[in-house]
Amino acid sequence: MIEQWMHEKLKKDIGEVRYNHSIGVMNTSMELAKLYGYPEGEAELAGFLHDCGKLKDKINLLKIAKEFDIILDNVMKHNPELIHGPLGEKIAIKEYKVTNKNVLNAIRYHTTGRENMSLLEKIVYVADIIEPGRKFEGVDTIRQLAYEDIDKCLLYALDRTIVFVISKGKLIHLDTIKARNQLIILKDLE
Amino acid sequence: MIEQWMHEKLKKDIGEVRYNHSIGVMNTSMELAKLYGYPEGEAELAGFLHDCGKLKDKINLLKIAKEFDIILDNVMKHNPELIHGPLGEKIAIKEYKVTNKNVLNAIRYHTTGRENMSLLEKIVYVADIIEPGRKFEGVDTIRQLAYEDIDKCLLYALDRTIVFVISKGKLIHLDTIKARNQLIILKDLE
Repeated sequence: MIEQWMHEKLKKDIGEVRYNHSIGVMNTSMELAKLYGYPEGEAELAGFLHDCGKLKDKINLLKIAKEFDIILDNVMKHNPELIHGPLGEKIAIKEYKVTNKNVLNAIRYHTTGRENMSLLEKIVYVADIIEPGRKFEGVDTIRQLAYEDIDKCLLYALDRTIVFVISKGKLIHLDTIKARNQLIILKDLE
Repeated sequence: MIEQWMHEKLKKDIGEVRYNHSIGVMNTSMELAKLYGYPEGEAELAGFLHDCGKLKDKINLLKIAKEFDIILDNVMKHNPELIHGPLGEKIAIKEYKVTNKNVLNAIRYHTTGRENMSLLEKIVYVADIIEPGRKFEGVDTIRQLAYEDIDKCLLYALDRTIVFVISKGKLIHLDTIKARNQLIILKDLE
């Protein structure tokens, strides 16, 4: 169970809409953890805190990243909305006193993905997209896949994200490409 | 002008269909070179030879790559059709006696693209897609862009390629992502 002060702090820091989304991600992460045999407590905390770096009052993400000693790659420098992943990890450590490395990595990589994602990282990545508050065309397909095969679902979601990012003319993070390439290679080896 | 023995060798090595495509790419590369003020002789040679690594009688591309001392990255290992770029460079040196580094790089990177592409690399990449023999939905849009703004055209073509590769479930080369990200960053700086 997440302590009450954390609920209050998160709602204050990221705003009510994102807080409600976080509760959705937390619940979905726990469901997926149960299904795939992952410790539910870690999934609960990672899902709850995944967006703790999306500060409501953020003014300059590049400046905040510097204050938290986050080393930014070229893509993050030019697409600062990706900073909330690594920033979330730092805030989770400093302000929510999280020490569990699995939870911290799931927060850090929940937007880009990466090569060698842990089961918890996959769960939070997918839960972020399919939590009950998400309404977009095709969400039902992804939701169904999530409960059938987490890797297939993740690959589908990564591909969808890349196509979406292209349609918006935004930068694609290399970790996202590495994550989907690896899933294809592993699938082909099966 | 390309010497007659090279025409005969290329047709024999890659087959008539690909040879005809190469002539198309050669002509389009020369047109683009003229338009953008690049030496036409280099564009002619690079366009002509861009697919010289697509050997008709290839049996095992991984084996051939090893014979030519090509160091393969993980994506090429699992998507051997990408090998014809670096293999083409090696064959151009060894069998067509090409020494011009601009031409060799244009051959090498014509399928993946890369960061910091030279004008010749851009010309051959684009010409490969829009030469008169290419018929696919949307080719007219790319063709028009090519004669208006080579960078805009390249970005459009790279994005289209990534979406196509995703639709086929194939691996995306990281150089392709780096190339398009860089074009977006440079465009935003304008």
